[in-house]
Amino acid sequence: MKTIMVSGLIAVFSLNCILSYAEEISADGLMQGFPPKDALQVNRTNFMLPPYNQWAFQNIRELQPTREVYRGDHRVTELEEMPIELGDRNYRVSNNREIDLDTWLEDSGTDAFLVLHRGHVVFERYYNGQDIHTQHQMFSVTKSFIGTLVLMLIEEQAIDPTRTILSYLPELKNSAFADATVEQVLDMTTSISFNEDYTDADADIWAYGYVFGLSDISDASRKKTSIYDYLPTLKKMDKRSHGDAFSYVTPNTDVLAWLLSRVTNESISKLIEKRIWRPMGMQRDAYFWLGRAGTEMAGGGLNMTARDAGRFGQMILQGGKYNGKQIVPPNVASHILQPVNSKNSSDFAYHDHWWMLNTKHQAVSAIGIHGQFIYIDPVAEMVVVKQSSHPEAEGLLNEIDGPLIWQAMAERLIASEQ
Amino acid sequence: MKTIMVSGLIAVFSLNCILSYAEEISADGLMQGFPPKDALQVNRTNFMLPPYNQWAFQNIRELQPTREVYRGDHRVTELEEMPIELGDRNYRVSNNREIDLDTWLEDSGTDAFLVLHRGHVVFERYYNGQDIHTQHQMFSVTKSFIGTLVLMLIEEQAIDPTRTILSYLPELKNSAFADATVEQVLDMTTSISFNEDYTDADADIWAYGYVFGLSDISDASRKKTSIYDYLPTLKKMDKRSHGDAFSYVTPNTDVLAWLLSRVTNESISKLIEKRIWRPMGMQRDAYFWLGRAGTEMAGGGLNMTARDAGRFGQMILQGGKYNGKQIVPPNVASHILQPVNSKNSSDFAYHDHWWMLNTKHQAVSAIGIHGQFIYIDPVAEMVVVKQSSHPEAEGLLNEIDGPLIWQAMAERLIASEQ
Repeated sequence: MKTIMVSGLIAVFSLNCILSYAEEISADGLMQGFPPKDALQVNRTNFMLPPYNQWAFQNIRELQPTREVYRGDHRVTELEEMPIELGDRNYRVSNNREIDLDTWLEDSGTDAFLVLHRGHVVFERYYNGQDIHTQHQMFSVTKSFIGTLVLMLIEEQAIDPTRTILSYLPELKNSAFADATVEQVLDMTTSISFNEDYTDADADIWAYGYVFGLSDISDASRKKTSIYDYLPTLKKMDKRSHGDAFSYVTPNTDVLAWLLSRVTNESISKLIEKRIWRPMGMQRDAYFWLGRAGTEMAGGGLNMTARDAGRFGQMILQGGKYNGKQIVPPNVASHILQPVNSKNSSDFAYHDHWWMLNTKHQAVSAIGIHGQFIYIDPVAEMVVVKQSSHPEAEGLLNEIDGPLIWQAMAERLIASEQ
Repeated sequence: MKTIMVSGLIAVFSLNCILSYAEEISADGLMQGFPPKDALQVNRTNFMLPPYNQWAFQNIRELQPTREVYRGDHRVTELEEMPIELGDRNYRVSNNREIDLDTWLEDSGTDAFLVLHRGHVVFERYYNGQDIHTQHQMFSVTKSFIGTLVLMLIEEQAIDPTRTILSYLPELKNSAFADATVEQVLDMTTSISFNEDYTDADADIWAYGYVFGLSDISDASRKKTSIYDYLPTLKKMDKRSHGDAFSYVTPNTDVLAWLLSRVTNESISKLIEKRIWRPMGMQRDAYFWLGRAGTEMAGGGLNMTARDAGRFGQMILQGGKYNGKQIVPPNVASHILQPVNSKNSSDFAYHDHWWMLNTKHQAVSAIGIHGQFIYIDPVAEMVVVKQSSHPEAEGLLNEIDGPLIWQAMAERLIASEQ
């Protein structure tokens, strides 16, 4: 694939942005005042639209029901600061442009930007009211947490990647997922007829969004009361079989979340809490945006601080070790970091719910719309976290220019050591 | 007054309880399973009803939008444990009954029960899935936090208790509150026509509940988009003037919250965070249930752990000092603890948004429906926290028997030292 395939949540959110990007309201005063002026109020109708999304992505819990991912009462694993000035030169980006770091950070809608090198904080900036303890919405970065959990359970032989979804989730027997293998769902090579034409009011994507309080739909019969009722309705594409090709369809992640809960009898929040958040000594709780019937938005609902996102990336980079513990089995970490044997010159590939970037260092990244990244460069031992509220769901500045800048930073960090 | 006057939130919730107390569903399996069975799902329609309220009161954030009260990253102020067996005898309660502690704790719907003596944990029990880190809904205990903040700002001369509400909040000029003094609102001696006849579908209480996502109403013209639109609609009672008599009307607290934010330009969440939660070294964040337009439910929306509730009571007991700091001015603490010069033999009196109980030790308490208490006995230097999910909003077991048992415990703690 040549570029990131948009679908699922991306489509829902893009529509909103396109519809109203013309509005000229400054984000500065959002939700300020008692009461805030009407035009400055962020609510469930406007929260995905610029400029409202800037406030919303730092305050999802004030707009939606949420479930905590408790950090426990353990000591915080401190991050040592060893600042390096990375903003003193220009970076070459797409279309042969050059851009200085400050301009790029601002133009790409950055709320938080963190660079770890060998586990030390070498560069850290906050914008738009965010600070070191703000839990920011991560969108599809969430998917990589779910993928990691599935890999862990595969390693523990609690999940067999070659088994069909039907064999775990009989509820999906009449759906497209029934004869898909776990592995196909994990790599998103399933054949799912998922109409994401957002100019079509009857598109599947609206029924999906309804489950998570994102959109309303007119056809009452399609208003499913939860993701458990929604997933069984999905059917295969006519001319494609499972395994034929990669296709980024968000409900795949909801199937994995259901699979995880069926096998462990735990919610995905609790799994992340027990297996990742508590043992790692995270700085703050994380939390999940909940949909109808109290199900986590597995495809895009995690919120966390920039530093905790960095800790997670660092743990993967360190072969699954962190805070003196083996958090994730070494095989899982190496599997995530392993380069995809790319047959074409694609910019991105996807496996195990992680993006493989065709950078010189073959970086791996979790990526969410509007500029969310946990980017891992295994060669430079660098982790980059970017949390953003860019007006557009995706675009050059984040998905294309970001990795170019980070590759240059990585080379610079290596050079600085020699 | 002879008993607690029910009104405001109490009425809303009582109705629900009365309507459906007959249902025979066990609370044990609530929200268990993937998916939970339909009858075991807790949602915004049933969450105030037994048995659903048992799960709901420990998980309000999973049902409603919420705002954090951040504890900061300071060290937790530890509570030393010095256990004393208080359950080895019976206690004499109302109607000349005797009851053992375990039975009383269970029958009164206890989720958490904590007794501090001189700041040490002497007795602590958790039930119904709650544990030491669970943030439990406190209902009208919240009011006492708001009252305490107002007293602090009065002490700092940022608020003048003799001034009218109109002089601070011109938005309320056509409402009952306009010519009420701050002090009258604080003591709830305002004259507010607030129809809480819950058999009347047009009652004011339903319009109030609508603002906080608690109830729906049929008359669209009464659907106010926020508490800021709702409060100006309240009018005086015909035959009563401000100052005439105590009348427990929850919107008084919403007026105080607005006053606090007007004077400080901070939300009440941020005020509690900055002035109480961070400096005290609380164990966990607290959080507020939010209503429409992102306003905190000042009259009943705080959620916190039992131990953090205990720390707050202990701070008041210690003259406002805690964690080596003067959290609340000594005058504020002594004002809260000062016995009301009761003219009759009333069981309860109310001042500054705190209940004054006519126990032998003249205890002071924050009280919320369904069995929430932060009870301070200044003679025995004892603080009791009770968090509950009793099926009924109020009743003998909590509001009447509770203080009788705690008075006996206090006497026992004093005796044990001699």
